Amino acid sequence: MKAQLECIPCMMSQALRAAKAATNDKKLIREVLNRIGEEVKNIHLEKSTPPEAAIPVYQIVTDVTGVEDPYKNTKREHIKEALALYPLMMKKVEQSKNPLKKTVKIAIAGNAIDLGSRLDKIDITKEFERIENSLFYLDEFDAFEERIEKEKEILYLADNAGETVFDRPLIELLAKRNKKIYYAVKEKPIINDATRLDAELSGIKEEIISTGSSVAGTILDYCSKEFVNFFAKATFIIAKGQGNYESLSNKKAPIFFLFKAKCKPIAKETGFKIGTMLLMKSKYFK
Amino acid sequence: MKAQLECIPCMMSQALRAAKAATNDKKLIREVLNRIGEEVKNIHLEKSTPPEAAIPVYQIVTDVTGVEDPYKNTKREHIKEALALYPLMMKKVEQSKNPLKKTVKIAIAGNAIDLGSRLDKIDITKEFERIENSLFYLDEFDAFEERIEKEKEILYLADNAGETVFDRPLIELLAKRNKKIYYAVKEKPIINDATRLDAELSGIKEEIISTGSSVAGTILDYCSKEFVNFFAKATFIIAKGQGNYESLSNKKAPIFFLFKAKCKPIAKETGFKIGTMLLMKSKYFK
Repeated sequence: MKAQLECIPCMMSQALRAAKAATNDKKLIREVLNRIGEEVKNIHLEKSTPPEAAIPVYQIVTDVTGVEDPYKNTKREHIKEALALYPLMMKKVEQSKNPLKKTVKIAIAGNAIDLGSRLDKIDITKEFERIENSLFYLDEFDAFEERIEKEKEILYLADNAGETVFDRPLIELLAKRNKKIYYAVKEKPIINDATRLDAELSGIKEEIISTGSSVAGTILDYCSKEFVNFFAKATFIIAKGQGNYESLSNKKAPIFFLFKAKCKPIAKETGFKIGTMLLMKSKYFK
Repeated sequence: MKAQLECIPCMMSQALRAAKAATNDKKLIREVLNRIGEEVKNIHLEKSTPPEAAIPVYQIVTDVTGVEDPYKNTKREHIKEALALYPLMMKKVEQSKNPLKKTVKIAIAGNAIDLGSRLDKIDITKEFERIENSLFYLDEFDAFEERIEKEKEILYLADNAGETVFDRPLIELLAKRNKKIYYAVKEKPIINDATRLDAELSGIKEEIISTGSSVAGTILDYCSKEFVNFFAKATFIIAKGQGNYESLSNKKAPIFFLFKAKCKPIAKETGFKIGTMLLMKSKYFK
């Protein structure tokens, strides 16, 4: 999808949040905001997806503060907190009538852990408790279930650190059913997106691959040639998070998007209210 | 209070909201955002209160779109909707054990009608229904009640159009108790702040005076000499809304602030959670 006017104030908020995570020096934080302000006129909304439009934000934060990974400590905390919930997740799956559906719900619920779109501190435990009462829209779950049964290999595009733990029940269930999972993470830290280390710390035992990219979402122009080839050959892709939807919704690829709708432009694009937990089949998945 | 780093992304959001209210022309809206972006570096947070820092925002919206009063129609709708609730407000006051306290609560509840700080459409009726369950903090109500009994004249600084109707139960009760009320409104439209016309359309029968200002809050440097003199002589001031708190919290004046806390910096400054409905005595009210 294309970036929208709403993405511009959002970028300013993201910049402030990331700058505050990177440093306590108010002058530096202010310098970040000034630089983002000057950058506004250079953003071509109509030529970019939202994650593309936001690339300068995180580059400016790093340039000004000298901090490559502002959310490093927060990511570790999120992983730790999510790991503490893992036994409870598995218990819920075991007790469920439809374990696959339950793992999908848990995976989507994990998408609440997103520092790009959030202003406040995230209480992961609380978020998890809310799962049962959340507004899920899994209208295409039957298609998902039917199709996945036939597949042997699944490319799983990870999103945020901590959310990675919430992906485990689903990928472990798929692995038990003899699917080969490729769990794709970012090459370098960007926002709180998962890297190889984050995936490993989260206890992911499936094969971890790198997209070769260090920008948010999965912007193929910024991925490694190796990953782009791999992506092109994939027959079943699970893409986690709004950023992956934003960057891949117009790509001809066999994707099921699993995410929580988090802002006005995405609500308008998908037709679902902010806060809805979605499983959406790409229009290009035949 | 001083403007904070958080005010900068907020200004960008306010600009987008006001620009969208002023025009459907996406190029003009975009031009507004570009101009605000360039303005960021010129904002002196440490020298300004938040409403002062936001002055360029609304000037740029008007300069670029040619629209002086983007929220004109919205204000009329809010007044109409609030007027429909007026009989219910009065019924609640009549049924109350402490009518003065009830009118204060209604007045504060009206402060939810604020287009400066809100992203979404406001459902005034719904907001009103929530009054009973809201988090009110009227710790200083006894001081308010005791002091107001002795006063003959009250300067009431109005805030938003529509909220004006919610002020009526309080000012009508005070008028019945033989207080002379001066209801102070903006000289020209700014955001959805009430002007003389808005107050008249809301059914305010007390004396309406102008602050002489066309910026948000009550920034004395931008008010008429006449109003500044009047303000200086006032012995009891009721100031509605966060903008009035932001601009007057450091002024030596006998003020009770009535408002809903709406953002992080104000939550930090006051020590109350976002969403709290407050009656706060100024530290300078002896």
